[in-house]
Amino acid sequence: MRLARIDTPTGPRPVVQDGDVWAVVVDHYAPVLERTGETHAVDGARLLAPCEPRVVLGMAHNSGPADRLVPPQAFAKSARTVIGPGEPVRLDPAAGKVVVEGELAIVIGRTARHLTPEQVPGVILGWTVGNDVTAYEQSAVDDKFTQSKNGDGFTPVGPWIETDLAHPDDLAIEVRVDGVTQAEASTSGLAWDVVEQLVYLTSHLTLGPGDVVLTGSPSTSAHVIPGQRSDITIEGIGTLTNPIT
Amino acid sequence: MRLARIDTPTGPRPVVQDGDVWAVVVDHYAPVLERTGETHAVDGARLLAPCEPRVVLGMAHNSGPADRLVPPQAFAKSARTVIGPGEPVRLDPAAGKVVVEGELAIVIGRTARHLTPEQVPGVILGWTVGNDVTAYEQSAVDDKFTQSKNGDGFTPVGPWIETDLAHPDDLAIEVRVDGVTQAEASTSGLAWDVVEQLVYLTSHLTLGPGDVVLTGSPSTSAHVIPGQRSDITIEGIGTLTNPIT
Repeated sequence: MRLARIDTPTGPRPVVQDGDVWAVVVDHYAPVLERTGETHAVDGARLLAPCEPRVVLGMAHNSGPADRLVPPQAFAKSARTVIGPGEPVRLDPAAGKVVVEGELAIVIGRTARHLTPEQVPGVILGWTVGNDVTAYEQSAVDDKFTQSKNGDGFTPVGPWIETDLAHPDDLAIEVRVDGVTQAEASTSGLAWDVVEQLVYLTSHLTLGPGDVVLTGSPSTSAHVIPGQRSDITIEGIGTLTNPIT
Repeated sequence: MRLARIDTPTGPRPVVQDGDVWAVVVDHYAPVLERTGETHAVDGARLLAPCEPRVVLGMAHNSGPADRLVPPQAFAKSARTVIGPGEPVRLDPAAGKVVVEGELAIVIGRTARHLTPEQVPGVILGWTVGNDVTAYEQSAVDDKFTQSKNGDGFTPVGPWIETDLAHPDDLAIEVRVDGVTQAEASTSGLAWDVVEQLVYLTSHLTLGPGDVVLTGSPSTSAHVIPGQRSDITIEGIGTLTNPIT
């Protein structure tokens, strides 16, 4: 099932795809998805960020087997950095060089705390493409990552949420800049998998509906400059495109 | 002027104090405060967290002159950790020892980015008491502070927002546990003052209406255990009380 949020003349609406229309629903996070009857053609609909997180977390150093030798670690990103498909990532020259990072993003569906591995599937609403934009020269001077991770538009997510992914731990990720492939990898390259991540994170804090976990970049980053376009494709989900300004 | 949010039979309401009543307003963040005409007696009203931040930042190492020798630094707290007066701070035995930290909290009133010192007063809605609860043994194993700062109820704020404070950089702070004073200090003990903090923060990210900046703990922390009560008083604002469970 494909869930999204679209812009309509009367405001943003949560929707589910029914063939060639987006069917408006009451609430993506309700136990049963209730359609209102309102529909919009898929063609021409403007997609927004598919969720509105209160909490956005990213996994630090989670890109290869060596990272399992140290404990998992996460950082928080400002919820104000979240943007949707087509919205601009705004670079600030003062922040230095910037990379886009293509990552599988988990969208949380319900309150989650102290999860066991068995409970993890039950709290995941679905999956989207995340771009953990990073001003990487700032990381070197701020180990909290507050300076590097929170520029305007630094967390593109979308284009939609796929609720059914057979193998989230083995999905191809491709990062293109201006149409040229810069990185190709798989979520199988992550040190800590999705279940381990959510067990770890919820042992320390509460996640809730709409929250996003960026699962880490398995060598899926690419340097960008203003005027370019970033396209991130994840197998089974789709392509998230954003201009860099 | 004193702004708050209160619980009413028909839901939470933003209010302003007019003598012995809380007068409901349309929006704390509107250019002009518009009263709806609905009022509630101050006596007996249940206060909620006075704002609903999307972004909560805390200043790291900001407690004395030596901290000016290193650059300012900030960390993000989950917006889901925010609670109001009287709500419980929930300790998780697995997280180890916990301290409360009494801090002056800035409540942002409008979108703020790349501020000059002169622009800072114009983006501040007001001031409240913040408690930057910290599981400090976790700080030692997670330099991102994600593990130490995000337990349930780890960011009490309130009891209300004072919009007029003559000297935010010289306010007495007192921290009491079960009524016994554990720490007394002043915001004058902060390394980087309020203006410097907001110039620094907004050079890296955007803040917006309702966001909270915890300005740092000038030696205003106290160890707490379940069953105790924390009272934090800041001169010119009031006292924020929370049970520890």
